Amino acid sequence: MRTTSRVVDSLGRSGIRDIMELAWEYGEAIHLEVGEPDFDTPPHAVEAARRAGEEGFTKYTPNAGIPELREALADKVRRRNGIEASPDDIVVTPGAVAGVYGAIVSLVDPGEEILISDPAWPNYRLMTNLSGVTEVPYPLPAENGFVPQAELMEPLITERTRAILLNSPGNPTGAAIPLGALREILELARMHDLWVLSDEVYDEIWYESPPPSAAPLDPDGRVISFFSFSKTYAMTGWRVGYLVSPPEVTESIVKVQEPITSCINAPAQWAAIAAVTGPQEVVAEMRAAYRERRNMVMGLLDEAGVPYVRPAGAFYQMVNVSGSGMTADQFARRLVTEHGVAVVPGETFGPRAADYVRVSLASAPDLLTEGVTRMITAIAAWGTEPVATE
Amino acid sequence: MRTTSRVVDSLGRSGIRDIMELAWEYGEAIHLEVGEPDFDTPPHAVEAARRAGEEGFTKYTPNAGIPELREALADKVRRRNGIEASPDDIVVTPGAVAGVYGAIVSLVDPGEEILISDPAWPNYRLMTNLSGVTEVPYPLPAENGFVPQAELMEPLITERTRAILLNSPGNPTGAAIPLGALREILELARMHDLWVLSDEVYDEIWYESPPPSAAPLDPDGRVISFFSFSKTYAMTGWRVGYLVSPPEVTESIVKVQEPITSCINAPAQWAAIAAVTGPQEVVAEMRAAYRERRNMVMGLLDEAGVPYVRPAGAFYQMVNVSGSGMTADQFARRLVTEHGVAVVPGETFGPRAADYVRVSLASAPDLLTEGVTRMITAIAAWGTEPVATE
Repeated sequence: MRTTSRVVDSLGRSGIRDIMELAWEYGEAIHLEVGEPDFDTPPHAVEAARRAGEEGFTKYTPNAGIPELREALADKVRRRNGIEASPDDIVVTPGAVAGVYGAIVSLVDPGEEILISDPAWPNYRLMTNLSGVTEVPYPLPAENGFVPQAELMEPLITERTRAILLNSPGNPTGAAIPLGALREILELARMHDLWVLSDEVYDEIWYESPPPSAAPLDPDGRVISFFSFSKTYAMTGWRVGYLVSPPEVTESIVKVQEPITSCINAPAQWAAIAAVTGPQEVVAEMRAAYRERRNMVMGLLDEAGVPYVRPAGAFYQMVNVSGSGMTADQFARRLVTEHGVAVVPGETFGPRAADYVRVSLASAPDLLTEGVTRMITAIAAWGTEPVATE
Repeated sequence: MRTTSRVVDSLGRSGIRDIMELAWEYGEAIHLEVGEPDFDTPPHAVEAARRAGEEGFTKYTPNAGIPELREALADKVRRRNGIEASPDDIVVTPGAVAGVYGAIVSLVDPGEEILISDPAWPNYRLMTNLSGVTEVPYPLPAENGFVPQAELMEPLITERTRAILLNSPGNPTGAAIPLGALREILELARMHDLWVLSDEVYDEIWYESPPPSAAPLDPDGRVISFFSFSKTYAMTGWRVGYLVSPPEVTESIVKVQEPITSCINAPAQWAAIAAVTGPQEVVAEMRAAYRERRNMVMGLLDEAGVPYVRPAGAFYQMVNVSGSGMTADQFARRLVTEHGVAVVPGETFGPRAADYVRVSLASAPDLLTEGVTRMITAIAAWGTEPVATE
């Protein structure tokens, strides 16, 4: 019989999309739910794409990306992430998301298990559902700043476990895994001979100090690292990410890429070369801007006595809204319908974040101030309402 | 234990890649194995991408593509394919390949069956392997010009069959399914309530008359049609394809796209709008050029008495090399190592094509003439060798 697949039916609706749709109904809502930089792609990257188009670099490229880009990226991860990689260890992907999906399909069979954090970026769950892999959630305790701990992962490992997925700095948490915790997790992976998928797309967006990468701590080629141009260079719409992996894994992921998308947009690959080899002031400028916004938001929350988790990186801030007397989902729906401010309820990312909403620091400062102020007002007002009105 | 997945191990090596590598060893080989137009992307498409980049259209787009492009494509399929579609029925994909993969995952569960031709484009098999779907090959008889026949499909249908995949004009066959055969296949699909995935990426490349599309023959929304900018507008490296499907399927495929690649390169979407709404002379010019090459190759083969299947569309010609006394695989390896001409052995596409090699008409005419001439000489020479030398 003609049906859609059970796999697709399992994908469900996105909590972020629910809120966005409520925001559209509201009209002039303030959008603090979207994880997209409000900066423009650097002009030298735009210019490189233009030149590539005009010079006829518009044909198929190798599945793994053009050699010039893989060379530049091997150099970048050596310099900035401390990863000793050759160009052959790099695969260019249509966004880091495609790399993570390719790695899951390449390394984990249907019915096998992968450890993924709670809370986590919801697309990870979509990927495991699509590939028939079983997701086993490991807790990120809010009281520990949403930092993962090896001892909370260990009891979850079974003989079907194949990989641990890390995301540092994290979406939605803003947490970065400190060196000590990272070492313990890698030691755990070594003991159980597991792959480590390390999503580091926010590697360049940090507030106090650059977050450590997982791969340099790994002597035996079990870490696959994922990076992106989307966040670092405000290039979301170009769809260029990349991964670094041991050579035998590279080969598998390249194989997977062929029937999914073949190769990456060719002019975008030239834009990426220009971005990563050109002037890097733009990266420092964006980092400084996000830091200023984070500090501003933390100031407003401190003043009002609203608890939050201090972000170490990425451009998200998790704000505890339990003072409103509602679940985050109830709170976020009411905030957008009554006050026109869209934030993402924590439940979207996992039950461990049910007291929190995610505020994006990638929004313009004036909107951010206005939105957070309205949110603080709402928490206070609704927190003093009699419970019966809920 | 840390291994790569069985799924990926099943993907195997590409026969095309084997020949390409032999060609690289040879040095100055003539490449008749690659399915890539030797034309440039139309300048007005390149210009539109440049403008999009400079004007800041470099952010995430909706998963399904920007509204302007979906509007233009609904208009295109109405005018040129006779498909009554609204913009909501269109999904823009990173190449048609991603659309077919998304549709398979959306419509067929692991362990269920899909009918795919023998011979067929090898990426279909990669897709079914990746998604755990069982591929059931239906024969394309060479003596019938590689045209599929409903009566050869019917005995293969089981209660696990969910879909029939068609590819017209076909790669590698160059065959177009005539209206009568297409009607019978759709009737069969209706009787057994199956989906029909109709890969029509070569819809604009035909020699005598435009090939019929499957969707206009379908009153009950079971056909999903796939198209591409790669072939029609020489835009392989931009990675833009699209599909037309019933609304409930559109929704599923859009869901699948999110965790795989999120959206399509934004400037490329503007290039695509310019290509499909701009001057279409370039399409007619390429079509005429391919026709001229096809006629030239047919002339050389006729003169030498080498059998082939007359292409109705696409830019491939299947040449029967059994006169050489070898399998196509043996022939192709020896042709590239001894004569420096790379063609794809039929076995790459399926056992039914084991007497044939695929010659790409997308190569420059002088190289095509030289390559086909060397091939004809080799068939004749090796065909008269004593069998013991093989």
